[in-house]
Amino acid sequence: MPHWKLIVAYDGSPYNGWQIQPGLPTIQGTLARALHHITGETVLPQGSGRTDTGVHALGQVASVSLQSPIPASNLQRALNHILPTAIRVVSVEEAPTDFHARHSAQRKTYEYRIATQSICPPTLAPFVWNCTWPLDLVAMQQAAAYVIGTHDFTSFAATDRDLANRNISAEDDDTTPAIAKTAFRTIFASTWSRDGDLLLYRVTGSGFLHHMVRNLVGTLVDVGRGRTAPDLIPAIIAARSRSAAGPTAPPQGLFLVEVDYT
Amino acid sequence: MPHWKLIVAYDGSPYNGWQIQPGLPTIQGTLARALHHITGETVLPQGSGRTDTGVHALGQVASVSLQSPIPASNLQRALNHILPTAIRVVSVEEAPTDFHARHSAQRKTYEYRIATQSICPPTLAPFVWNCTWPLDLVAMQQAAAYVIGTHDFTSFAATDRDLANRNISAEDDDTTPAIAKTAFRTIFASTWSRDGDLLLYRVTGSGFLHHMVRNLVGTLVDVGRGRTAPDLIPAIIAARSRSAAGPTAPPQGLFLVEVDYT
Repeated sequence: MPHWKLIVAYDGSPYNGWQIQPGLPTIQGTLARALHHITGETVLPQGSGRTDTGVHALGQVASVSLQSPIPASNLQRALNHILPTAIRVVSVEEAPTDFHARHSAQRKTYEYRIATQSICPPTLAPFVWNCTWPLDLVAMQQAAAYVIGTHDFTSFAATDRDLANRNISAEDDDTTPAIAKTAFRTIFASTWSRDGDLLLYRVTGSGFLHHMVRNLVGTLVDVGRGRTAPDLIPAIIAARSRSAAGPTAPPQGLFLVEVDYT
Repeated sequence: MPHWKLIVAYDGSPYNGWQIQPGLPTIQGTLARALHHITGETVLPQGSGRTDTGVHALGQVASVSLQSPIPASNLQRALNHILPTAIRVVSVEEAPTDFHARHSAQRKTYEYRIATQSICPPTLAPFVWNCTWPLDLVAMQQAAAYVIGTHDFTSFAATDRDLANRNISAEDDDTTPAIAKTAFRTIFASTWSRDGDLLLYRVTGSGFLHHMVRNLVGTLVDVGRGRTAPDLIPAIIAARSRSAAGPTAPPQGLFLVEVDYT
């Protein structure tokens, strides 16, 4: 029974996030329906993690086993033929039986895109946070560096109340079950760069708590606005309290870029 | 009573075109509601022409008179505050009383965007036609040049049946009433260019019949695919029959770029 690793890109705008939910359009549900249409099999592809409503992906990874002996290239072509253009299967390859998109993940990279134009082009609006106030990129970069390392990231995790409202648990969200029970995560890279009118935040970590990237970005933007000094970040981390950090950046600027398995 | 010229950009994806329709989201209707919200006045801004469902604009022009003595910069700021991010007011300036966005227009420029990637990025998909077959850009450019000049463009106009289905008349669609009654239009520029994986068609004319740009693009893509010889374009124009030309390109690749008034 072939086991598959799919790399999936999507525009999250029209979806209620990755995770299948009855009666709502989701990426996982749309993918499952397409697989059923092609193979007749009822399967649920496992993602490397859920993405929230409005969050996008360039390299979400999904794993799924199928009985049908369909070749990889045919499976990819058939999926891209059936799926809406907002979801694209970028690659399909056979994977070892024990490969699990979530449990096997070693590192994830997210990118957050901020547009700084005073009037944001409508074609860009679904994919950025439009920040029209002046931002000090040097201060934001200095603050971002403090995030690197292994820390308890409770200050940047969605609160129990946020999660209860959406009927999910924080542990659900992350990669490896062994580390999911704690709020300790290791961040390998955390940097800002400029690309024309865009400010791009890239962060690579062992895993991320729910809302963690958006809460980091909200806090780093507070630094860029001069509301928080860059060297306060260690104290914000040490506080282990959501109220110590800044607001949650909006979902539409966030992209899951890559998931590494080695 | 101040008279205004607005330049408006929009992502047409979530709208049923420019023209106000009861019970449907439209650009004109959304703009009218925002103006009412700001001034309390019930006005209908006039566009330089309608754009169809899913068609975008970088520089649609609208004219409207308001009683309220609101300064231009306040009006722009208030509109962009109220309007959804899919619609942006790029500029607001006072105009002579006799300025009419449609009747005063001298030239319009449209751009049509084709993406040639075998897998089109989901963030690009709402704004392009994804053509995955090989296209001969030199042949398309050669064919495009035949369009320049003053011609009867009946071969590239939506048929009466197309229009009847949508309860509109061909004349409605165009700029100057004097020329709207005939299918003669003057095309000043008609060129293809490449920008990375994108093929861009730019066309500037005195006005355009309904579906004319999309029908030109569909025909020029037939040339690019080798289905139609480039030097057949004059005969297609001369046929004055919709069936002589190629298919209608999909709406989401089309942008109204600019409207000139002098």
